[in-house]
Amino acid sequence: MNATEEKARRSIGARRNPASAEAILDAAEAVLHEAGYSGFSIEAVARRARAGKPTIYRWWPSKAALLIEVYQRQKRDIVYADTGNIEEDLFQFLRSLFGSWRDTPAGNIFRSLIAEAQFDAAAAEALADYARGRRAYTGKLVERAIDRGEVARGVDPSQIADMVSSYAWTHLLTGRLDESEDKLRAAVGAIVNGIKV
Amino acid sequence: MNATEEKARRSIGARRNPASAEAILDAAEAVLHEAGYSGFSIEAVARRARAGKPTIYRWWPSKAALLIEVYQRQKRDIVYADTGNIEEDLFQFLRSLFGSWRDTPAGNIFRSLIAEAQFDAAAAEALADYARGRRAYTGKLVERAIDRGEVARGVDPSQIADMVSSYAWTHLLTGRLDESEDKLRAAVGAIVNGIKV
Repeated sequence: MNATEEKARRSIGARRNPASAEAILDAAEAVLHEAGYSGFSIEAVARRARAGKPTIYRWWPSKAALLIEVYQRQKRDIVYADTGNIEEDLFQFLRSLFGSWRDTPAGNIFRSLIAEAQFDAAAAEALADYARGRRAYTGKLVERAIDRGEVARGVDPSQIADMVSSYAWTHLLTGRLDESEDKLRAAVGAIVNGIKV
Repeated sequence: MNATEEKARRSIGARRNPASAEAILDAAEAVLHEAGYSGFSIEAVARRARAGKPTIYRWWPSKAALLIEVYQRQKRDIVYADTGNIEEDLFQFLRSLFGSWRDTPAGNIFRSLIAEAQFDAAAAEALADYARGRRAYTGKLVERAIDRGEVARGVDPSQIADMVSSYAWTHLLTGRLDESEDKLRAAVGAIVNGIKV
């Protein structure tokens, strides 16, 4: 995660002890790696990290919140380019997101999280929060394009981000992360042509 | 489900006995209503319908395939309008889909199916199949628009359908089915403006 991305994250656990937090995240990664999503629990992470469950819950309000942070560590850096061309910026974003989901454990973690959010209210809340943050963040690509006069004023940046990430989510959830670059460009192109000045 | 939609469905169980099939679908609806998604099983449906499990499996290859058919019965008719304006057609489609998911049990059935598909290969296959069929079907709105010269040739209808339905799926999965009509129109507008002649 790069510095800007770090800053853009929600400030959950802002006052947590960095060393213990790192140890807990390391433990969480190890548990996930060894036991898989189904074996992942705050209890197992606490045991592994030799930390108390209350400590973990103080910094992460739910198992899902902890998983989201593990997810962010595992996924490769997502490209937020600033090429001066919104179509290119969004294409690079989408391509790097697809690649990260396909080539690292992050894709499976994220789709498990989405699944869990359909049955568990805390997971749903953590996911909704996270998704809102990501839309705002990706929306900055569109904001910049508005500022430089490439995209029409009046376009809602977070809605465009929503459409791009919805496209990505659905591909993740239906096993279509191998979409060709041409298809990704066409998807981005359709959206971008629709909002250009 | 209207006649055209019926025809567009995959031909699973084309040779099944209509009366028994109806009885099984009725039983499946009843089980789902009484026991919820977590209590839904082919076993319970067979008991309820006084049918053999092999009979059910002959017509529906998995629990998910049966659920998808129950889902299609429960969701209200989705509007596939032919107003001569692709933006209006897609808006009406999206609005009716959001409404059906919000106001009938169909929304919860469908998000449970998506969740299950993340852990179960048969469910994943049934869902992927179903989604592919829906994209082709919704893509017909775009095909018509191409035929009447409203949308550029070279646009892939099923990709546009993919973007519109991805937007819907993600809203379902993150509890945002109360999106305003203005937002839905803006989403459709961004896509449509991008592909118009």
